[in-house]
Amino acid sequence: MTTELKPHVVGIDIGGTNTVFGIVDARGNILATSSIKTQKHQQFEKYLEELSTELSKLISENGGIESIKGIGVGAPNANFYSGNIEEAPNLPWKGIIPFAKILSEKFGVPVALTNDANAAAIGEMTYGAARGMKDFIMITLGTGVGSGIVANGQLIYGYDGFAGELGHTIIRRGGRPCGCGLNGCLETYASATGVARTAREFLENRKNEDSLLRKLPLDQITSKDVSEAAAQGDQIAKDVYAFTGQILGEAFADFIKFSTPEAIVLFGGLAKAGDLLLIPLRKAMEENLLPIFRNRMKILFSEMKDSDAAVLGASALAWEAK
Amino acid sequence: MTTELKPHVVGIDIGGTNTVFGIVDARGNILATSSIKTQKHQQFEKYLEELSTELSKLISENGGIESIKGIGVGAPNANFYSGNIEEAPNLPWKGIIPFAKILSEKFGVPVALTNDANAAAIGEMTYGAARGMKDFIMITLGTGVGSGIVANGQLIYGYDGFAGELGHTIIRRGGRPCGCGLNGCLETYASATGVARTAREFLENRKNEDSLLRKLPLDQITSKDVSEAAAQGDQIAKDVYAFTGQILGEAFADFIKFSTPEAIVLFGGLAKAGDLLLIPLRKAMEENLLPIFRNRMKILFSEMKDSDAAVLGASALAWEAK
Repeated sequence: MTTELKPHVVGIDIGGTNTVFGIVDARGNILATSSIKTQKHQQFEKYLEELSTELSKLISENGGIESIKGIGVGAPNANFYSGNIEEAPNLPWKGIIPFAKILSEKFGVPVALTNDANAAAIGEMTYGAARGMKDFIMITLGTGVGSGIVANGQLIYGYDGFAGELGHTIIRRGGRPCGCGLNGCLETYASATGVARTAREFLENRKNEDSLLRKLPLDQITSKDVSEAAAQGDQIAKDVYAFTGQILGEAFADFIKFSTPEAIVLFGGLAKAGDLLLIPLRKAMEENLLPIFRNRMKILFSEMKDSDAAVLGASALAWEAK
Repeated sequence: MTTELKPHVVGIDIGGTNTVFGIVDARGNILATSSIKTQKHQQFEKYLEELSTELSKLISENGGIESIKGIGVGAPNANFYSGNIEEAPNLPWKGIIPFAKILSEKFGVPVALTNDANAAAIGEMTYGAARGMKDFIMITLGTGVGSGIVANGQLIYGYDGFAGELGHTIIRRGGRPCGCGLNGCLETYASATGVARTAREFLENRKNEDSLLRKLPLDQITSKDVSEAAAQGDQIAKDVYAFTGQILGEAFADFIKFSTPEAIVLFGGLAKAGDLLLIPLRKAMEENLLPIFRNRMKILFSEMKDSDAAVLGASALAWEAK
């Protein structure tokens, strides 16, 4: 069987909790998936053994290794150039792991790897909302804020493979402390944890104002609680989204001055707030754009199902793996 | 003579005052240059006539049109995709001028055009400090702040041809008003005019402190005056550069999170302040970088002579013109 005829790829998404993997065809249909627990094995060798066994099983049941063109992997702190996972704080194995090389030797097919947000961008370009686009920015709004930047039809990896850390651009100088050690990073405002943080701030600063959120202990409020309160018309909760949208809009205006994409594509739980987030976002974005860029920037939502996105994104990388 | 054998290109730099043009060989040697006054003709047709006459003369004297592979043009508000100069505020001719098309028809060779900072980036990549680099950012520090971004070996033009407006990213939210209509743009702090503005602010806010700059009327202080005072050890003048460097360093840290270049290359009068600017710039940049990016970002100075840079930059574009 020649390379051209291999009809399937494997996508593997390594998350802090689960490692999900699946077999995908050229139209983005997921033929089969399975998963293992990432945290079960403190030793990388044991983890690799379980992953290989389970993935081999899945491949055998779905056409065999002869039908697999390549394997794409999305993982935190993954370097596309080296194929290494480097000092990932959320994974149990420390140091530098040459994951692409190890997996490629085990399965005898090309393996490419990149971080989660870049994988999402490639997935969106291959199967989703950015099909046919040569210039767009993917923003993932989850626990943190991730980004994947596509320009001239190519992902921007930068000189060392770690480009696209837009979640850590400074949106408020001297602002909230971030886990990365800097202050005022976009991620400290526009992530799920940022939303919860804003809610706590607003509740403390507006003590005389009633809110559904006051029924909860202040330190246990999550972005989900804020979203539910906003859906019920709670003013403080709605203001939290307005503020979050404004922050995102201001940040997007500067991103547009950098690479002028055709669209910015949003993915992740926070994106589901819809107009609550989008209306203030658009307003702040337009106000902070140069006149030449105004009234033509598309803000799109991912077309990937949450449960499929990670595997599809990773799998999309495999078509080009060498 | 086949295309491959044509040994020369033409570079044209259209500035607000002068239009300079020259003939350049593949090693970046300028064989001959000439210029006309941009502002002399309010009618574009008259300007074009003079430019064509003078350029034809220069070409005839230097091997004839048969030796010219193409023409590259650097101009304000130039769009690489369309080949148009669009509503340039500093040029006498209004509206949208299909400059590349007109010139290509007149001379019978391919013409490519882009804005000044992008031309500078291509010049630096072809003949200068960025030779061999696939990922770098060019920052021109002149009357304004311009930028050209190269990633994966290609200039980023964005979806519409106007990407790379880093001079108008917001470095101080709600900060100084900018000519573009926004507030707090990098350009309002880190340009020649920004430096003069900072000097006036510092002189007003530190009334009890002596300074060489106090000999000049406040509203007539230029960046050149500040630079000369700093060279003589004037504290306020030195502090102006320290502040300007800090602003640039903060901005660069965010640019690096975007495209992670191998180097940032500086060009323009302000870059000549050397360590006065560079030491605070580096400090602020490092403090605002993610740990993974620290202590390895190169800040380089352009290797182009001021007088040659504009023509060389524009000419470099011509090698790829189609």
